[in-house]
Amino acid sequence: MEVSARNFLKTTVKKIVTGSVNTEVTLELAPGVEVVSIITKSSAEKLGLAEGKQAYALIKSSDVIVAVD
Amino acid sequence: MEVSARNFLKTTVKKIVTGSVNTEVTLELAPGVEVVSIITKSSAEKLGLAEGKQAYALIKSSDVIVAVD
Amino acid sequence: MEVSARNFLKTTVKKIVTGSVNTEVTLELAPGVEVVSIITKSSAEKLGLAEGKQAYALIKSSDVIVAVD
Amino acid sequence: MEVSARNFLKTTVKKIVTGSVNTEVTLELAPGVEVVSIITKSSAEKLGLAEGKQAYALIKSSDVIVAVD
Amino acid sequence: MEVSARNFLKTTVKKIVTGSVNTEVTLELAPGVEVVSIITKSSAEKLGLAEGKQAYALIKSSDVIVAVD
Amino acid sequence: MEVSARNFLKTTVKKIVTGSVNTEVTLELAPGVEVVSIITKSSAEKLGLAEGKQAYALIKSSDVIVAVD
Repeated sequence: MEVSARNFLKTTVKKIVTGSVNTEVTLELAPGVEVVSIITKSSAEKLGLAEGKQAYALIKSSDVIVAVD
Repeated sequence: MEVSARNFLKTTVKKIVTGSVNTEVTLELAPGVEVVSIITKSSAEKLGLAEGKQAYALIKSSDVIVAVD
Repeated sequence: MEVSARNFLKTTVKKIVTGSVNTEVTLELAPGVEVVSIITKSSAEKLGLAEGKQAYALIKSSDVIVAVD
Repeated sequence: MEVSARNFLKTTVKKIVTGSVNTEVTLELAPGVEVVSIITKSSAEKLGLAEGKQAYALIKSSDVIVAVD
Repeated sequence: MEVSARNFLKTTVKKIVTGSVNTEVTLELAPGVEVVSIITKSSAEKLGLAEGKQAYALIKSSDVIVAVD
Repeated sequence: MEVSARNFLKTTVKKIVTGSVNTEVTLELAPGVEVVSIITKSSAEKLGLAEGKQAYALIKSSDVIVAVD
């Protein structure tokens, strides 16, 4: 599948914290570089996420804010 | 400064493409791992972005969609 | 592919308006029910969008605001 | 009222699932075509949402990601 | 009309800058307190925005990032 | 620090409501003008937010929807 979002990054699931409604998923982009995603618990179950499995992080370019010191 | 957004990633500016209104900034998170941001041209100028300079990518965790094959 | 976003709707591309930077894509969800998407021109080209072709509209549930009269 | 968001779709409330903080609202756009929205529980109460009632789904065009197989 | 978004702020249109595709609208919330919105040019025309007119700024609470020094 | 987001507003924390996962923060922009933010409970703790303290509201201009009566 192809998507219009510019950022479609290959990652490894590093950690999953399951709440009552939402699940916090930590995705490793490269050694020591991680991105955290919050999705609904039902989505996390539907996707069959598990630590060590491969997943993609999909981020719209307009959702990336740039900052400098 | 501290921000509520969970993802505040240290990057290096890899490429800047300036349009008439928006600027597309490619940020390198790790060798070969890049994230693209689209910001207004005036913001890019205000930040003084330049290739090779350090910058941060600020992304809300709820803006990261997870996908699996 | 499976995605964490709750809304993954099957549509038909109804109209494409190409600007200098962005492309406006009108997607038909059902007869007379349309949703408009704005994506970058380069994304539209990469996806090979064309009127009459099938496409999916992917929308996070937190991006849907509800209103009542 | 008029809004700048391009998508302002007439719907019927199909299902409401109330959580401790958030409420998940399923809106029917056309027979068999539904969109899910997650709003705060207090917003759902303020709006007086109920199954069978009419409501609008308000979605910014930049929040609609397009995908193709 | 009632909306699920928590922030629905009464403002006065302070400045309108029209681009080829997008329009930048500066809204005054209180003397000296302004918020900038970028909407499509066609939306700005449809809304009949003009400097000095009253308008509302509609912002989802999850789109407000908090920062401290 | 400088950020690409156009709206970076100085505020005073007016009210904090702590939930099990999320925290609702009411920020006062000017007397009687408030904006509500929902952030994760862990972010609120990391930021050390407290009623009466100064904080910034960071909002992307594309996240501000404009409405008129």
